[in-house]
Amino acid sequence: MSKQEKREFHSRSSGVFFEIKRTLFKKKSRYQEIEVFDNPYFGRMLFLDGLVQTTEKDEFFYHEMLIHPAMVTHPDPKQILIIGGGDGGALKETLRYPIERVKMVEIDPDVIAVAKKYFPWLLHSLEDERADILIADGKEFLEDSQDKYDVVFIDSSEPVGPSVTLHERSFFELVKDRLNPSGIACAQMGAPFFQMESLKRAKDDLKDVFEIIRFFLAPVPTYPGGNWCFVYLSDQVDPFAIKREPPPDLQYFNLEIHKAAFALPNYLLEILK
Amino acid sequence: MSKQEKREFHSRSSGVFFEIKRTLFKKKSRYQEIEVFDNPYFGRMLFLDGLVQTTEKDEFFYHEMLIHPAMVTHPDPKQILIIGGGDGGALKETLRYPIERVKMVEIDPDVIAVAKKYFPWLLHSLEDERADILIADGKEFLEDSQDKYDVVFIDSSEPVGPSVTLHERSFFELVKDRLNPSGIACAQMGAPFFQMESLKRAKDDLKDVFEIIRFFLAPVPTYPGGNWCFVYLSDQVDPFAIKREPPPDLQYFNLEIHKAAFALPNYLLEILK
Repeated sequence: MSKQEKREFHSRSSGVFFEIKRTLFKKKSRYQEIEVFDNPYFGRMLFLDGLVQTTEKDEFFYHEMLIHPAMVTHPDPKQILIIGGGDGGALKETLRYPIERVKMVEIDPDVIAVAKKYFPWLLHSLEDERADILIADGKEFLEDSQDKYDVVFIDSSEPVGPSVTLHERSFFELVKDRLNPSGIACAQMGAPFFQMESLKRAKDDLKDVFEIIRFFLAPVPTYPGGNWCFVYLSDQVDPFAIKREPPPDLQYFNLEIHKAAFALPNYLLEILK
Repeated sequence: MSKQEKREFHSRSSGVFFEIKRTLFKKKSRYQEIEVFDNPYFGRMLFLDGLVQTTEKDEFFYHEMLIHPAMVTHPDPKQILIIGGGDGGALKETLRYPIERVKMVEIDPDVIAVAKKYFPWLLHSLEDERADILIADGKEFLEDSQDKYDVVFIDSSEPVGPSVTLHERSFFELVKDRLNPSGIACAQMGAPFFQMESLKRAKDDLKDVFEIIRFFLAPVPTYPGGNWCFVYLSDQVDPFAIKREPPPDLQYFNLEIHKAAFALPNYLLEILK
């Protein structure tokens, strides 16, 4: 095939390919390699360090499932923090609720600039006066401020490169300390099928930090294995006690899906029990 | 990359690749092109007409989710029919239950021969005296016999090539006619994200054939988008009324997963309502 294409390995001997219709952006930022392509099927695609972060066509799976499980179960989510998430998708979903303030702390200003220019449907929230976008390392931000939050979302990239500290136990301890007593943290946890070892490590790291630790799953077509893992963390909040209806016009999430997402298959129960 | 690889397109401009460690079999049978490869990550892989049918490492997702939802909800499943399924995976899962007889009707004898030789862990059931393997077209087999079944599984390949008749309304009417009154049919329905149009057509075709039509989902890492759709069809049986525990040692299916699998995301509710 003579067409230009982008490949991503999921294992050392398998992966996905995407035909590149157009390369819109390619730059090694201070933190990572940022690439933006157009693909005929998935539309606009953002890669960081060679890995698909988000695509126009399937972003809703990941962003809805990162944000809505916490937002429909927290008793009164007003103060929200997003660590990472520079593409704006998590921010967009958060702003569907009547919150007071959401801070998004992204380490790489180039990702913000790219999202503004190439993914305006994700990062359309810049003019929303409830949204603050800050450029900082997520861990350092938490260390330097005593502000408390109702919900903290960790929308990190993989545990290599700039996100490495966002996968450590000491980071989750800091998150817990900055949560109000009825707070919830939700984090993405990688591809369950391909990353069972790191999932097991994450579970071991988290087990004494929060009272309630529930892993949940959602499909994301362009992510490895098409299935993604998240974790719901709290000391007080029951993830099955629904407090409000989700906002209208979601493409993936509903309350049946919410309950269903926490059902884990045997191969994961084995390592997460 | 100089290594030999096998590619499968999921859309016209995206897909998956698998490094080929070894090609074990390659033949154009009377019905389709059959290929068997070894991949370092997924182990042994079977392709039909260029599409992944099953792999050693992830076969359990698909085969468990095709078979167990019907088997744990039928009041007394004794007489079972599998249409297609020549690799043997569906047969293996069915034989975990104390059934009386299972007939597997596969059109392509070369698939059976390949499964015997290269996938003996799937088609290990040949010596089980409850299992009958028949070489025939599934639709013709049903037309030619008035035998009735408690559960019919349709483990077809895609609606092109030899499986085309297994996706037509007249075929499902025939299946219904060969089911006992408390019978259940379960069929694979393709990749929901990539094949929304054919899913909608299938739903329209089925809607007057069975009283109870419930679509359900499961991840399958090597299938398009990593997510697969199935349908549960019956005139009498409630898919949520569990009649028995699943067999031990399953890798994917459990009763929580059973319930969860029927939760559909908004984008599918839209087309399947």
